[in-house]
Amino acid sequence: MINEKLNQAVRILKEKKVDLWLNFVRETSSSPDPVLDLILGTHVVWSSAFCLTRQGEKIALVGSLDVQNVKDHADYEVVGYVDSIKPSLLKLLDRLNPKRIAINYSTNDVTADGLSHGMYLILMEYLKETDFADRLESSEMIISALRGRKSKTEIEYIQGAIRETLLIFNAVTAVVRPGMTEFEVADFIKNQMKDKGLEPAWDPDQCPAVFTGPDSAGAHAMPTGRKIEPGHIMNIDFGVRYKDYVSDLQRTWYFMREGEIAPPEAVQRGFQVIRDSIKKAADCMKPGVEGRKVDEVARKHITDAGYTEYPHALGHQVGRKAHDGSTLLCPQWERYGKLPFSKVEAGQVFTLEPRLTVPGHGVATIEEIVVVNNDGCEFLSDPQEELYLIAFEA
Amino acid sequence: MINEKLNQAVRILKEKKVDLWLNFVRETSSSPDPVLDLILGTHVVWSSAFCLTRQGEKIALVGSLDVQNVKDHADYEVVGYVDSIKPSLLKLLDRLNPKRIAINYSTNDVTADGLSHGMYLILMEYLKETDFADRLESSEMIISALRGRKSKTEIEYIQGAIRETLLIFNAVTAVVRPGMTEFEVADFIKNQMKDKGLEPAWDPDQCPAVFTGPDSAGAHAMPTGRKIEPGHIMNIDFGVRYKDYVSDLQRTWYFMREGEIAPPEAVQRGFQVIRDSIKKAADCMKPGVEGRKVDEVARKHITDAGYTEYPHALGHQVGRKAHDGSTLLCPQWERYGKLPFSKVEAGQVFTLEPRLTVPGHGVATIEEIVVVNNDGCEFLSDPQEELYLIAFEA
Repeated sequence: MINEKLNQAVRILKEKKVDLWLNFVRETSSSPDPVLDLILGTHVVWSSAFCLTRQGEKIALVGSLDVQNVKDHADYEVVGYVDSIKPSLLKLLDRLNPKRIAINYSTNDVTADGLSHGMYLILMEYLKETDFADRLESSEMIISALRGRKSKTEIEYIQGAIRETLLIFNAVTAVVRPGMTEFEVADFIKNQMKDKGLEPAWDPDQCPAVFTGPDSAGAHAMPTGRKIEPGHIMNIDFGVRYKDYVSDLQRTWYFMREGEIAPPEAVQRGFQVIRDSIKKAADCMKPGVEGRKVDEVARKHITDAGYTEYPHALGHQVGRKAHDGSTLLCPQWERYGKLPFSKVEAGQVFTLEPRLTVPGHGVATIEEIVVVNNDGCEFLSDPQEELYLIAFEA
Repeated sequence: MINEKLNQAVRILKEKKVDLWLNFVRETSSSPDPVLDLILGTHVVWSSAFCLTRQGEKIALVGSLDVQNVKDHADYEVVGYVDSIKPSLLKLLDRLNPKRIAINYSTNDVTADGLSHGMYLILMEYLKETDFADRLESSEMIISALRGRKSKTEIEYIQGAIRETLLIFNAVTAVVRPGMTEFEVADFIKNQMKDKGLEPAWDPDQCPAVFTGPDSAGAHAMPTGRKIEPGHIMNIDFGVRYKDYVSDLQRTWYFMREGEIAPPEAVQRGFQVIRDSIKKAADCMKPGVEGRKVDEVARKHITDAGYTEYPHALGHQVGRKAHDGSTLLCPQWERYGKLPFSKVEAGQVFTLEPRLTVPGHGVATIEEIVVVNNDGCEFLSDPQEELYLIAFEA
């Protein structure tokens, strides 16, 4: 996986016309740079520079004690030092003479901001008598592309996480009954995870999140002692970690009342509006479209049907984390800054998660996961086409 | 523990005449600042400022979603924000009007370098139209004192780690026999840890480190398949983690040859020289003495007895990590930079770990742990007074 991402990074450098990408780090077990998960896969102790060039060179300058470990983990030409990294770093810069040098800091994106200020000052001290200090820029656009455009292996891992999550949703459908509390449903899911040796995709207090009925909490809350009653819509927001990649999915259940043989018209319609808004949004997903355009398609479908719009983005990227950063499918609201205008790219993996309220019953919401390809997108999750119906029990 | 450290930090600000200590962080689960283990004990998501003043104010500016969690973990006056941290930060600075502001970066000490360069740029942008930008300095001297000077609770935790380690050393003495390999001794210790639910104090590949006989590897190496033979000196370097604090100790064993009723004179003498060098070093430990002076006492005792000097420092601080940073008991060698001149302070916890080679037998080395008090130091580890002798077995 690391070597796939290293080769991809070189292609991104060519595309962005950056000559050298320099990641400067030290003692990464206590001061981790999040990008090292993508381009190294282990830790280093002494000050180290992981350097990729537009020409495809991959060079790691590391302390002598770290040499073997780095060689064992990633496909770098590894140069060890004993006293100081400065001579080998200056020698490398002199040889490459890069015009544009991207370094690992960012004001916008925490996942691209692994350079500490102390390390920045050390780098400036090293470069003070060279021309290179004036050629530095943030590598956030490189990291955004590298993190966003998933490799084949990364997509396989995300698919693994999706598969495990959907199996657990199926198990929930088999056991959930009116009278159970949100806590009890969450505990059932936690036990399933435990049996399968799976970790939750985010904060275990809210993963799974379980919401039942018309009075349930909003999104991002902990399960409560609230009981499932006939006539409730229940939804669950849940994902698992699989080989360090995660899923993030939502499904909706309806609990039949005594004598019902189908959900009420209002519940059925709410569910279908959500389902169809996701299909429409997916239909317009393709490389080059702005995130806000995709959001608008789903949002308009829902408001046109007479419902209140959802108070959040339509979807976010998924990867090593449930919120994997960068391009977002969000409306043009002030709090989202420039993100609504960022463009969808092939290889990005997004959630699609609109919601609406069915008065008196609860919240209808589905969260699917799609991967963008060259001329559209495809679903990685088997989409929920119908409400999961649970029979009445007194 | 956190509140103990917060009160201590205020005392350190008074001593260092710093008006405000400002720790600026965000998304600390992916970008941790090591000092938060001492002054917060949990994570925050949005940009946050943890501010301590010389007058004793403790103020946390955090995102609204982080307010309750911060309140639950540490004794701050918590101010939540929704849109941006900037207004509350500028308001606080205007009210306090601090002359000296220490912020969380350091070129020297990675444990004091939690500020990312992106966050530094954001802070500079916030302060650009104020007088405060010119009043910033590194907080490394504050963090060094705060991390170094252990509170009562921290010392109790270190004592817990020491107690568990010495119990395991006793168990080793009861089972170790000639013919066992270094691997087997290490496995026995790992099983003891597992039974007791203990984690190793450092890299599990080298914790425990086991060295037997005259041909064993130097320090900091993995156990091998080398067999313990009669006539060998064996030493073990080992520590455990107890409530997030660690021990780091060494003990020495001698394996009697057939017919021996005591160790050979050379082995006995080597052990005693090490033991006495530690006592002498401890006798001169007190607040204000330079680290190099303490090292010199032990080093001279060993070379005066005719042995080669040890190729490392006499001792380092112990705390949340086995190498807890800052003041070191080390010789005035170039690689140690300014550290030999740093002064011992009350409350610091140090190892004392000289070594010497007994030709034909192995390495005699003991590592004890002491805490500095107001007029000297006291041993936290029950010192090894005599070689641990293992009877001959064919």
